[in-house]
Amino acid sequence: MQKQYLLAPGPTPVPPQVLQAMALPIVHHRAPAYKEIFAEVREGLRYLFQTEQEVLVFASSGTGAMEGTIINLFSPGDKVIAVRGGKFGERWSDLGKIYGLQVIDIDVEWGQAVKVAEIAALLEREGDVKAVLMQASETSTGVMHPVREVAELTREREDTIVVVDAITGVGVFALPMDEWGLDVVVTGSQKALMLPPGLAFAALSQKAWKFNRDSTLPCYYFDFAKELKNAEKGQNAYTPAVSLIVGLREVLSMIKEETLAGVHARHARLATAMRTGIEALGLELFAPDAPSNAVTAVKAPAGIDGQDVVKTLRGMGVTIAGGQDHVKGKIFRLAHLGYAGEFDVLTALAALERALAELGYELAGRSGVSAAREIFQS
Amino acid sequence: MQKQYLLAPGPTPVPPQVLQAMALPIVHHRAPAYKEIFAEVREGLRYLFQTEQEVLVFASSGTGAMEGTIINLFSPGDKVIAVRGGKFGERWSDLGKIYGLQVIDIDVEWGQAVKVAEIAALLEREGDVKAVLMQASETSTGVMHPVREVAELTREREDTIVVVDAITGVGVFALPMDEWGLDVVVTGSQKALMLPPGLAFAALSQKAWKFNRDSTLPCYYFDFAKELKNAEKGQNAYTPAVSLIVGLREVLSMIKEETLAGVHARHARLATAMRTGIEALGLELFAPDAPSNAVTAVKAPAGIDGQDVVKTLRGMGVTIAGGQDHVKGKIFRLAHLGYAGEFDVLTALAALERALAELGYELAGRSGVSAAREIFQS
Repeated sequence: MQKQYLLAPGPTPVPPQVLQAMALPIVHHRAPAYKEIFAEVREGLRYLFQTEQEVLVFASSGTGAMEGTIINLFSPGDKVIAVRGGKFGERWSDLGKIYGLQVIDIDVEWGQAVKVAEIAALLEREGDVKAVLMQASETSTGVMHPVREVAELTREREDTIVVVDAITGVGVFALPMDEWGLDVVVTGSQKALMLPPGLAFAALSQKAWKFNRDSTLPCYYFDFAKELKNAEKGQNAYTPAVSLIVGLREVLSMIKEETLAGVHARHARLATAMRTGIEALGLELFAPDAPSNAVTAVKAPAGIDGQDVVKTLRGMGVTIAGGQDHVKGKIFRLAHLGYAGEFDVLTALAALERALAELGYELAGRSGVSAAREIFQS
Repeated sequence: MQKQYLLAPGPTPVPPQVLQAMALPIVHHRAPAYKEIFAEVREGLRYLFQTEQEVLVFASSGTGAMEGTIINLFSPGDKVIAVRGGKFGERWSDLGKIYGLQVIDIDVEWGQAVKVAEIAALLEREGDVKAVLMQASETSTGVMHPVREVAELTREREDTIVVVDAITGVGVFALPMDEWGLDVVVTGSQKALMLPPGLAFAALSQKAWKFNRDSTLPCYYFDFAKELKNAEKGQNAYTPAVSLIVGLREVLSMIKEETLAGVHARHARLATAMRTGIEALGLELFAPDAPSNAVTAVKAPAGIDGQDVVKTLRGMGVTIAGGQDHVKGKIFRLAHLGYAGEFDVLTALAALERALAELGYELAGRSGVSAAREIFQS
């Protein structure tokens, strides 16, 4: 028997009571029992997104909601800025280009956050920019981007919105949509929402809904206006992923019980301890200046391939993530979001210490586990 | 306590062992354990679709794969025939129009199957028709359309394909894709595949893949070529709905054990018994000439609203479906697909007899339950 520990940035572990709820016999999506569940879910999503707007739910991965945002809000030729500082920033850029938008890429070095001044200057220079497309948390690099500050720039401009992929942001750190003036917030089920993959979410400000009315791109399955109309009647445009919706109700009720502030504080604690532990081990953070509380990206030490770290941990039953694209082998990523607690951080660090020793890395004087434990005890 | 019986045409009941498999801790979609599961699933899907081609899997409802078919295979201006004889036939037509295709609608009276001669004449007259879009089983009316005969027309034409929505066809009756020359076969998880909603499938013939290379419509999440490339490497383009894939492995192994021929024969038996029982009750079938073995649509008897039949059954814990759009109130639909056995048909008929009596319908001399039982005993 080898016990398994899932510490990758999505899918993340699903709490047992949620697995159990999803294993109940299927409910028909037009039956009154489903309507009650969905009503509760809609309310819980508003609390989670901190918005008065409807949070739309789709049966798809998060990418579906990202594509939906492009085709529902823009038209060919529209000028948009894409913050490209990781795999998911590139996705915004690719999506814009595929649909004929005029995409101005801001290339940010992987591991760095975008500079607000750079966006401000571009907005000033280009004039008619319709949107800034960015990540709240770039999962591929472990960076947190300054969406609040960018929203301060866009909210003063009548014809510019900020579109936020918060797939590893929602439920991890504060992103009060209405208060900050975030115009589109997108997330997925398999991150801080502690569910299996298969649900995507998108919430739009009234300013963003105006963009929807002007868009000329065709859409069908990801038709936001149609989904809104249905949601307001308590239903879904197309057959919803019923079992995941049932699980979502459980998860949202857990979040409500912990409170959103509590959830954010827990993630902050876990992330701080993880980063402290990593540095105690003499390792370097990949995103030291603006780290995301969802996932910690670590530079592979000299002479050690990051993929070997991933494989060695897998041999111990511990699943983490490697680097993607040009940082493959150069970094590895340890997640601490969703159904995660202090002992998971200690597990990750203990396993990492052992893996690095096996790979011939000479550990610095201090133990990562001890350093993290001190944080938790303080 | 009121026991619940789900007898609607999707979502359908999920077998307990499948619910249990899906309740296991989540597997990471890049881990070797997932690759093994997905390899088994790919093989099982080929058996189910009776094809040598790859069966693509998407995290979405079936509509996503229908939209995917349009945007991956056609271009604005392409001429296509849509068989419009129910809600889902209308969906093909709508999808084609939204993406600028030149859609020639064949309007078929709801409850009737399309006439092959009509399609033959249209193909002859119009010449450059790219595709015939149709349903194998029109879920909204309970009709089975003659896809085999239509495929005989299209396979002789180099530039015409037949596109089959088989969402309530695959796993219900024989649709040997390669043998019959079906060019696109689409299905979903929540029908005969006995899973919760959330997965859609599409398989393409080599002729259809040629259409894919010529298509000019943009796509991203439902990019068939990208998904094929990933599937051939044993993975998915975007985060797959892991728990549903795990359930799918169980379901495909159940189907293999029963054999596809056995699955089809079971559905034929159930459907025959249901139709016999309905007629014994003195009720009229809505699709007597070409009934689908997935679902039996029944005309509401004079003076009784079909929606009242649905509601009365719900009061007994039995969920069936009503009519949609202009046949709402005029028909009701009893499903017998997926995880369904003989006693489910008897349950449906017994509940229906009681409901009709409550609603004041004078039952004909014979009992539907007895008539169906005779079929099962023969």
